Amino acid sequence: MRKSSTVTVREKPVEEVASATSGGLTIYGETFLVPTDQRVELVDLTNKVMEYVRRFNIREGIVSLWSMHTTCSLFINEFQTALLTDIRRFLEQMVARDAEWLHNNPDHSDCDRSNADSHLRALLLGHSLTLQISGGEVVLGQWQRILMAELDGPRARSLRIQVFGVS
Amino acid sequence: MRKSSTVTVREKPVEEVASATSGGLTIYGETFLVPTDQRVELVDLTNKVMEYVRRFNIREGIVSLWSMHTTCSLFINEFQTALLTDIRRFLEQMVARDAEWLHNNPDHSDCDRSNADSHLRALLLGHSLTLQISGGEVVLGQWQRILMAELDGPRARSLRIQVFGVS
Amino acid sequence: MRKSSTVTVREKPVEEVASATSGGLTIYGETFLVPTDQRVELVDLTNKVMEYVRRFNIREGIVSLWSMHTTCSLFINEFQTALLTDIRRFLEQMVARDAEWLHNNPDHSDCDRSNADSHLRALLLGHSLTLQISGGEVVLGQWQRILMAELDGPRARSLRIQVFGVS
Repeated sequence: MRKSSTVTVREKPVEEVASATSGGLTIYGETFLVPTDQRVELVDLTNKVMEYVRRFNIREGIVSLWSMHTTCSLFINEFQTALLTDIRRFLEQMVARDAEWLHNNPDHSDCDRSNADSHLRALLLGHSLTLQISGGEVVLGQWQRILMAELDGPRARSLRIQVFGVS
Repeated sequence: MRKSSTVTVREKPVEEVASATSGGLTIYGETFLVPTDQRVELVDLTNKVMEYVRRFNIREGIVSLWSMHTTCSLFINEFQTALLTDIRRFLEQMVARDAEWLHNNPDHSDCDRSNADSHLRALLLGHSLTLQISGGEVVLGQWQRILMAELDGPRARSLRIQVFGVS
Repeated sequence: MRKSSTVTVREKPVEEVASATSGGLTIYGETFLVPTDQRVELVDLTNKVMEYVRRFNIREGIVSLWSMHTTCSLFINEFQTALLTDIRRFLEQMVARDAEWLHNNPDHSDCDRSNADSHLRALLLGHSLTLQISGGEVVLGQWQRILMAELDGPRARSLRIQVFGVS
């Protein structure tokens, strides 16, 4: 059994900034970093995403947010200190860190991070969001916040944002 | 510790109906309400979404469906009375309503709905779907239904639908 | 109580291959089959999706991947034999196959596959992915792989891929 993970190789790395236009349609993409301080941490990206979208003159369209990692998730929920504590506790309940996961066993895995729990928690939350843009702004309900879940920090995480629409 | 949740404020509210075109590309968005009768309820939105998409002359493209709420999810599954009962039971097993969640504790939270379970169940199901349109209709398998999970009803829920494609 | 599930009927079936263009914008869609050998099996589709995207001259855009089934999921994670074993074990822990699900009970369901567990596991993983295209290739992190979860095989599964962008 191979102990290592498959590496994804593009012909060229993703460019920091990329864009394309066709008539009134514009696509802009950018990579940005989010530093984290704890092993499991929930970060509110809503204002950052809203500001990014406002920068471009896109009236109607979509915005995609993509985590470049396997142990860092993106999801929607409310941002309240109490609820964030509940979410962390829930993730710990769902996936025990110290269960006997093969990914953490040097006989079966060359990963030295012992982070099977991080991979499994990310399964539940997902790695991307595709949101609507309308009236030049992201479509979100009053209590909806765009959250990043660091599941194996602290680290600097790369996220890619892409807006796609008509001005 | 702040007991309240962050509010999301756009510069202007999302308009009921919005559209943009560029050449043969068209984008239409609309908000609609789905009333619910129970605290936890699964609603089949497939026909509504299929009819909405057929209304526009979009041959190939995508359709985004977005729940404007944190405790109301959108997902794909089969629509069968027995299975819907299993899904509700499964959500109850995954997230206990009466566990000691901080979000339900007035010492830590100003939310008076005691709905931590609703937030956590929504985490598992997600808040949006991005589907394909082909041949002027939504791409769905024979048993796939577009389902909304009311997780803290009864209420009237706002959903936003956006079609984006070429006629 | 009706024992059968609602069937989704389009006016016309999804065509094997479909495309549309408007100016520099192009949309291509295609259905392909993935055969599986086990009841629960994780298949790496990354190379297939990357090759599909490279076939078209789309520089910036999105690619949507859609499972046409209710018991076959699509998600992102690392591809390592040890971790895949952990993921299968995790899905078994989350949803017991032999619990008394109504969907498996002939008094309540006309489904003869006894696959309630497959439906519930698919709830957790989701049925689609919407990825970014940049520089003519899919945007993925170094360890990210596009995975299909067969949850009720062995079978031949239909997936639909759609690229949407500007050349």
